[in-house]
Amino acid sequence: MNIVLLSGGSGKRLWPLSNDIRSKQFIKIFKNDKTGSYESMVQRAYRQIKKLDRNASITIATSKVQIPALNNQLGEDIHISDEPSRRDTFPAISLAVNYLVDILGKDPEEVVVVCPVDPYVEDEYYKAIAKLAEIAAEGTSSLVLLGMEPTSLSTDYGYIIPETKEEVSKVSSFKEKPNQRSCEEYIKQGALWNGGVFAFKIKYLLDLTHNMIDYEDYHDLYTNYDKLPALSFDYAVVEGEESINVLRFAGKWQDIGTWSALTEAMEETIVGNGTADETCEGVNILNETELPVLAMGLRDVIISVSPEGILVADKDQSSYIRPYIEGLEQQQVMFADKAWGSFKVLDVDKGGKTIKATLNAGHSMSYHSHRRRDEVWIVISGTGKTVVDGMHQSIKPGDVIAMSAGCRHTIIADTELVLIEVQIGRDISEQDKQLFELEY
Amino acid sequence: MNIVLLSGGSGKRLWPLSNDIRSKQFIKIFKNDKTGSYESMVQRAYRQIKKLDRNASITIATSKVQIPALNNQLGEDIHISDEPSRRDTFPAISLAVNYLVDILGKDPEEVVVVCPVDPYVEDEYYKAIAKLAEIAAEGTSSLVLLGMEPTSLSTDYGYIIPETKEEVSKVSSFKEKPNQRSCEEYIKQGALWNGGVFAFKIKYLLDLTHNMIDYEDYHDLYTNYDKLPALSFDYAVVEGEESINVLRFAGKWQDIGTWSALTEAMEETIVGNGTADETCEGVNILNETELPVLAMGLRDVIISVSPEGILVADKDQSSYIRPYIEGLEQQQVMFADKAWGSFKVLDVDKGGKTIKATLNAGHSMSYHSHRRRDEVWIVISGTGKTVVDGMHQSIKPGDVIAMSAGCRHTIIADTELVLIEVQIGRDISEQDKQLFELEY
Repeated sequence: MNIVLLSGGSGKRLWPLSNDIRSKQFIKIFKNDKTGSYESMVQRAYRQIKKLDRNASITIATSKVQIPALNNQLGEDIHISDEPSRRDTFPAISLAVNYLVDILGKDPEEVVVVCPVDPYVEDEYYKAIAKLAEIAAEGTSSLVLLGMEPTSLSTDYGYIIPETKEEVSKVSSFKEKPNQRSCEEYIKQGALWNGGVFAFKIKYLLDLTHNMIDYEDYHDLYTNYDKLPALSFDYAVVEGEESINVLRFAGKWQDIGTWSALTEAMEETIVGNGTADETCEGVNILNETELPVLAMGLRDVIISVSPEGILVADKDQSSYIRPYIEGLEQQQVMFADKAWGSFKVLDVDKGGKTIKATLNAGHSMSYHSHRRRDEVWIVISGTGKTVVDGMHQSIKPGDVIAMSAGCRHTIIADTELVLIEVQIGRDISEQDKQLFELEY
Repeated sequence: MNIVLLSGGSGKRLWPLSNDIRSKQFIKIFKNDKTGSYESMVQRAYRQIKKLDRNASITIATSKVQIPALNNQLGEDIHISDEPSRRDTFPAISLAVNYLVDILGKDPEEVVVVCPVDPYVEDEYYKAIAKLAEIAAEGTSSLVLLGMEPTSLSTDYGYIIPETKEEVSKVSSFKEKPNQRSCEEYIKQGALWNGGVFAFKIKYLLDLTHNMIDYEDYHDLYTNYDKLPALSFDYAVVEGEESINVLRFAGKWQDIGTWSALTEAMEETIVGNGTADETCEGVNILNETELPVLAMGLRDVIISVSPEGILVADKDQSSYIRPYIEGLEQQQVMFADKAWGSFKVLDVDKGGKTIKATLNAGHSMSYHSHRRRDEVWIVISGTGKTVVDGMHQSIKPGDVIAMSAGCRHTIIADTELVLIEVQIGRDISEQDKQLFELEY
């Protein structure tokens, strides 16, 4: 089975656990019953797919900014089709499909299923996706969609009107976010929610893209990415297609783009260091810091803590978070997963910045320098080596490495390596970074 | 006017802003309208007294552990009578009165007023205290108490039953925490709350103490402090005294030992980095960290944040905090005011601990060493010098000073000096500290 997982944009609505570079699908809040540890939506989806079909070929369509987090959470042995710039789902899916052919060597006659990474689902969902792929392989229609059985009169979704109420039916029409009255009527007719899950033969979208713009292959398309229309796949492809089937799906499928929805999907009400007294009801605590959180006498409240801030919100009210987050004007990213590990900012002072970095075993930072700041590393635990202006040196806990502005440096972890980095300077900027080839 | 301010024990009920070494009277939450900055209860009381009588002689009776915080908040030019061990208010007041005579050279015929530092009061309160001192100076009774006009049928206070309802009256009797029905009756008779404010001639308590135990002077009493009975002043002195007057006081007098009471006294609902959306009502945010706090859709909730933790509590429920705090089993103090400045713990790791310390200009740490940890200082801002194993060295921003276990070290600030201290070791303990005389 070929799957393209769409891993979308940054989510401000789950602040402070999501930020400009960490989208909601990377927040680790779902307990993996097997390992006992917490996994993110991306990890959960990847695991669910591999459990169903260990030979599934998964390609993640995403933006460059997510690559370090994906490598951090899924390892480096994954397929990523990165968009050269942010456009919309049609260009992203089109590029991914060309990646399947030209990079992964897939036969254009094979089927691919495209689905967003962020709904909260159970294993049965991916079974339905496998079935979707089978239906698409039969070739009775150009496109096959997964239609979710509505569980409310929601006006937030697009509705698919099928010709029959059978499990697989031809699609009669689409209704984009109708009013509640119409929803009711459509649902009586057997309408389904459009969850953005599409199955088709690779060739179908290849041809469609070639008809749209002139390009040679994946690399050429990548270079000319901006020529692809910035349209949604629904608008650019689905709405113009006559031959579409839909497969009904009645299992769990939850959009968790708001705190209220996310907490509904949480199996445990408290993740991280937190306590709710016995007078609390419907309280969720999500704490990514070491600070103990104590909740007393609250009802239907989400408490969410990260190195970026603290949210305490009534669950209903929390969906109106966006303007407040924009008002916070976050100056900098306070924590992030990197391909080499992760970091968090411990302190920001007018004279400097203190960071804790954890490198995974076998990983290293880029070889780089800064123009406007000195840096000091103090090794807290682990072993490895540093390269400073070409000089290689083994390091162990307690070692101190001082680097003046302009000095090239990197650190290579043999074991997991924890260090404190103190940056000293008045105008510390993440942009002040010059990269070099490592000298051996 | 001689005043003894009783600065009492540690307050767990205002966690996380109070902790084992920072009592509630040191939390800076009261806006000083003149300076625009926030002051603590101790600072507020000190300022209020000095405003009324700039020649007032203020002695703070407290425990050793509070001395650094007192020096930090009030300066070093203050009088502190420190208890050699924690007992009760009678020994503490008795020692303070001996301090007045033997250390400050007061005449035993002078009057002293003793009052707790922690009620929230206005300037008028200290005017009443001055009047109390005048009444005591007249000598018509051995003791003069300040009696607060009850504002509720509270069963939490001791009641003073005066002979008459006049402003100054002889005391007829005391009723310790009566039931509500009795309260109502007493109040009809003109009863007052006992706020623990006592005025008397120094000689009165000197004689009483000498009659109780055998001692020479202040230093002798200090050494023999454990021989003084561990009793409250009310029990040891007031209840056995026949000749007591009470002065009625109807002004503001608020016990602020709980979050609910404290927030009532706050002039601003948000202190520190915090935002409450327009659907919040009765929400107070007290944030001593840099983390932005966002509150949405909450009602009558206190949000309190320090490097020690996060409390989110319904105001009524917050008074039941004690058992939960004990449950948190705080391993270590995460922030504190010191005589030389202040520190906060930025990170605790199994391999080490990272601290940010701010030294005030002209101050220095003790000259000390550690057995079981190495330390590194990185200067973020300011200038001064370090002494490491007797070697003096000037320091400036960016300087790195590495100290192995066993090495003696101190830092002396010429200007305000901010540094990051990284402690490296597996068993880091605050007890692992050996003090030395500084070598010149």
